[in-house]
Amino acid sequence: MMRDVDYIISGGYVLTMVEGASAIRNGAVAVSDGKIIDVGGEKEIAQRYNPKAAAGGRNKAVLPGLINAHTHAAMVYFRGIADDLPLKEWLEQHIWPAEGKWLSDEFVGDATELACCEMLQGGVTTFNDMYFFGDSSAHASKRMGMRAVLGAGVLDFPSVAARNADEYIKKAEVFIRNWLGDELITPSIAPHAPYTCSPETYMKAKRAAERYGVPLHTHLSETQYEVSEAMRKYGKPPVKLLDEIGFLDTNVVAAHCVWVDEEEIGIMAKRGTGVAHCIESNLKLASGIAPVVSMLRHGVNVALGTDGAASNNDLDIFSEMAFSARVHKSMSGDPTAINAFTALSMATSSGARVLGMHDKIGTLEIGKAADIVVVDLNKPHLSPFYDIYSLIVYSMRSTDVESVMVNGRLVVDRGKFLPKDEQEIMDKARWWKDRIADIEQTGKS
Amino acid sequence: MMRDVDYIISGGYVLTMVEGASAIRNGAVAVSDGKIIDVGGEKEIAQRYNPKAAAGGRNKAVLPGLINAHTHAAMVYFRGIADDLPLKEWLEQHIWPAEGKWLSDEFVGDATELACCEMLQGGVTTFNDMYFFGDSSAHASKRMGMRAVLGAGVLDFPSVAARNADEYIKKAEVFIRNWLGDELITPSIAPHAPYTCSPETYMKAKRAAERYGVPLHTHLSETQYEVSEAMRKYGKPPVKLLDEIGFLDTNVVAAHCVWVDEEEIGIMAKRGTGVAHCIESNLKLASGIAPVVSMLRHGVNVALGTDGAASNNDLDIFSEMAFSARVHKSMSGDPTAINAFTALSMATSSGARVLGMHDKIGTLEIGKAADIVVVDLNKPHLSPFYDIYSLIVYSMRSTDVESVMVNGRLVVDRGKFLPKDEQEIMDKARWWKDRIADIEQTGKS
Repeated sequence: MMRDVDYIISGGYVLTMVEGASAIRNGAVAVSDGKIIDVGGEKEIAQRYNPKAAAGGRNKAVLPGLINAHTHAAMVYFRGIADDLPLKEWLEQHIWPAEGKWLSDEFVGDATELACCEMLQGGVTTFNDMYFFGDSSAHASKRMGMRAVLGAGVLDFPSVAARNADEYIKKAEVFIRNWLGDELITPSIAPHAPYTCSPETYMKAKRAAERYGVPLHTHLSETQYEVSEAMRKYGKPPVKLLDEIGFLDTNVVAAHCVWVDEEEIGIMAKRGTGVAHCIESNLKLASGIAPVVSMLRHGVNVALGTDGAASNNDLDIFSEMAFSARVHKSMSGDPTAINAFTALSMATSSGARVLGMHDKIGTLEIGKAADIVVVDLNKPHLSPFYDIYSLIVYSMRSTDVESVMVNGRLVVDRGKFLPKDEQEIMDKARWWKDRIADIEQTGKS
Repeated sequence: MMRDVDYIISGGYVLTMVEGASAIRNGAVAVSDGKIIDVGGEKEIAQRYNPKAAAGGRNKAVLPGLINAHTHAAMVYFRGIADDLPLKEWLEQHIWPAEGKWLSDEFVGDATELACCEMLQGGVTTFNDMYFFGDSSAHASKRMGMRAVLGAGVLDFPSVAARNADEYIKKAEVFIRNWLGDELITPSIAPHAPYTCSPETYMKAKRAAERYGVPLHTHLSETQYEVSEAMRKYGKPPVKLLDEIGFLDTNVVAAHCVWVDEEEIGIMAKRGTGVAHCIESNLKLASGIAPVVSMLRHGVNVALGTDGAASNNDLDIFSEMAFSARVHKSMSGDPTAINAFTALSMATSSGARVLGMHDKIGTLEIGKAADIVVVDLNKPHLSPFYDIYSLIVYSMRSTDVESVMVNGRLVVDRGKFLPKDEQEIMDKARWWKDRIADIEQTGKS
């Protein structure tokens, strides 16, 4: 007898992204109550289940929702506010003043809606965030139907969010209690970086995270400046510093890790600390290029992150795959480095492992959450093709995403964003921008 | 009195790409008989001209058609046929055998249609090609309404196209005579590379080009192997070799130029030889990264090229801009290197200079050919923005191209490809691919 299910999502190729498994030709995924209940050949699935609705079709590929493992979603309102500048000038003269002036619950809520809209349309179903006003981010993410790990930022100095480390952590704990157990939102604590948080602050954050069983998220060894500061202050580089105080662990997501040596990579592998690799942001700010090939060789889990749209300038994981797969070939002098399957794994299964969510997302497997992306293969720039993984990583663009499901809910349907009127979201962005951009110049909008 | 014109193309931003000129807010371009006859404020243009048709509109930007300064268009049928492999294996075990087996007038004609479709939809209006069966490329390019400089390939060894250098050159001359004076097609001669053509062959090609007043196109210093071969055989690196025999000149387009030192860059600047920078292909084949920042400092004209889709794996100049602007910041350690305006210049005005066509294309100026692109700014991933150049280079994708005009003819109208049924072009690609891919594997289409 046929079982009723919510959806059957089919495609000429179903990429489960399970290690060692081949793509399923003419496959399908059955979804019910937010979960994947079966994956297999299209015909078998059609014989077993009676769906209320269908997605996908011929000339499509079905893949796990992509994971953006490091971002500051609400910074999308500062997209391109100050480009082609050195990091210090960019941060101190543009970003921090703009944040100090504009950040609020309202700003973060509105901006997060836009970020979710951009990410979902580009096939990203989960993002790992670090910012402030977490309740607003959480409400906005839920309204947009997106899965998020939201890290409450912690600093040693005052900002619009709090006055000192203890207050940031206290606020983080309130935020955690508000969202613990939510289906889509995972609260976390995010001590900003070794140059803005003392070792004591890091350990306070860690103990708070342990009390609630939530993950941690930090910037780590992003710039040479950060490393030389750590050497000057502590006599050791950031990774060693955080390891020696006992901070590094499997529940830590470390963003960037550009300036880490072989010994530090070994430490991260031993501790099970995952890396969120942000190649586009690192390139654009001329911060350097993380030794990802060596990380993978050491067995470190590596995910892909966009960083904030102010330094990227988008929230596009397809282009992070395209950059990662190409740039590391050149860096290592080895054209076989980071092949297409590995690049797509970093954006899916490895991304889930880095976030500690591999039991729930990252692959198309029975029992996992139905976070599923359908891409359209019937495009001139995708014709012809010989290998589906290569096509996705080297030729596909985020705009080839056709439909997106998060936790069993269809949020993008053949290009249409369903949770909210897209024009309203864009108009709101323009309204904020007109307030932010006080100096109008020819050539600037 | 109002003058009748064919088109008025308007946009919230008109980027003329004339050096030193600002973007025109709420501007328009008037087009008649294939040429730009006026550029200015939307209101003034509307008062002066009575158009038969209009394109563009609010929330759009208007820019010169992009230039792909180095490609092998017909290789689009080998898109991703063999990825993540070393160059030698890729070339000798996959690409050359496939070319030997499949190249023909029919193949090149069909494949060039697909390449033109992909490029035009992505805002590329001119491409500089190097391949064989040039008459088929030329006919296909014209059918698709695209502007092309088509280089007849010259080698010292036999291929499906000819038996020896003299025959390649003889065939090139026939091809040149067929197309000289064509409005859209510029024939050229393309001695392949210093490791496949002797100095004598280079100079024979040069003399033939001079007889007809056509440009030359070659690969130059793409890999370390090429440089060490030249050192071994000639005792000097490729750029010096070609300079000393008298080949380098303003009418030569040199693709790649990855392994050139400061002295060689100085030589290229002195000779006025332009470079087609192919960053995505160079990264993917781990060939190295061309010293573009130094080239620009020396005054060398640098354009952007995709190379063939077999090594890229697309024909997307937006992503070449995105890669170039980001990667060279990292390489030079200078986040101000290759700013957004410079990146867009490489794809437009500098591209035209490199091809020796700056009097005809590359900027939106009165008297130039009407090669014009309209991009849509009303997208979530483009909202909000503070600088239009930054938006185009760091956030825009080729799929944001809405309408494209070449030589006054609209070839893409709000996303619709007008010259030929797009599905027919894709079906033909699939038909060829099914013949080419003799071994079917799970996970391979």
